Amino acid sequence: MMDKTPETPYYAAIFTSVRTEGDRGYSEMSARMVELAREQEGFLGMESARNETGITVSYWRDLDCIRKWKNHSEHLLAQAKGKGKWYQSFKVRIAKVEKEYGFEKE
Amino acid sequence: MMDKTPETPYYAAIFTSVRTEGDRGYSEMSARMVELAREQEGFLGMESARNETGITVSYWRDLDCIRKWKNHSEHLLAQAKGKGKWYQSFKVRIAKVEKEYGFEKE
Repeated sequence: MMDKTPETPYYAAIFTSVRTEGDRGYSEMSARMVELAREQEGFLGMESARNETGITVSYWRDLDCIRKWKNHSEHLLAQAKGKGKWYQSFKVRIAKVEKEYGFEKE
Repeated sequence: MMDKTPETPYYAAIFTSVRTEGDRGYSEMSARMVELAREQEGFLGMESARNETGITVSYWRDLDCIRKWKNHSEHLLAQAKGKGKWYQSFKVRIAKVEKEYGFEKE
């Protein structure tokens, strides 16, 4: 799914990851985190895809909203479990979206 | 694959897309564009994943390098073919990466 985002500028949290073997509760947590993120103040959209690498990009109104989401208690728990069992490695990049353009087939 | 990127700030081009049916030369073009991008001045890394949505994030030293890559003759041809046959829709977001952190299992 590709989400519609507002006029720039806004912010993107680019989360790239390599998973460990097996599910071990990952899918359930992942679905819950998507649901929870969508409820947060300043959430603008989210796009996700996975092969060997997983990429999730979430979009936010400003840095403060990203900071609050990062420190949300249920999200903190998921982050801790993520380091403990679900992820081999990950990277988070916080970026200010300055320009956006697109294409849609008629 | 997760690429190592330098100290922030640097730039990200977030390309999300939904494909049309069938390959019709897409895989070959896609592999060639990755190869070509890696040769460009200011290229810092690239991460890619695809399910229903495809996400490719490429990292660049500055906006000028992104502009040059966008206007590279072979890339322009691929962009035109992309609109003509490979993509149902796509979005490009140009963003300044301000912060980066990561995790690696020992």
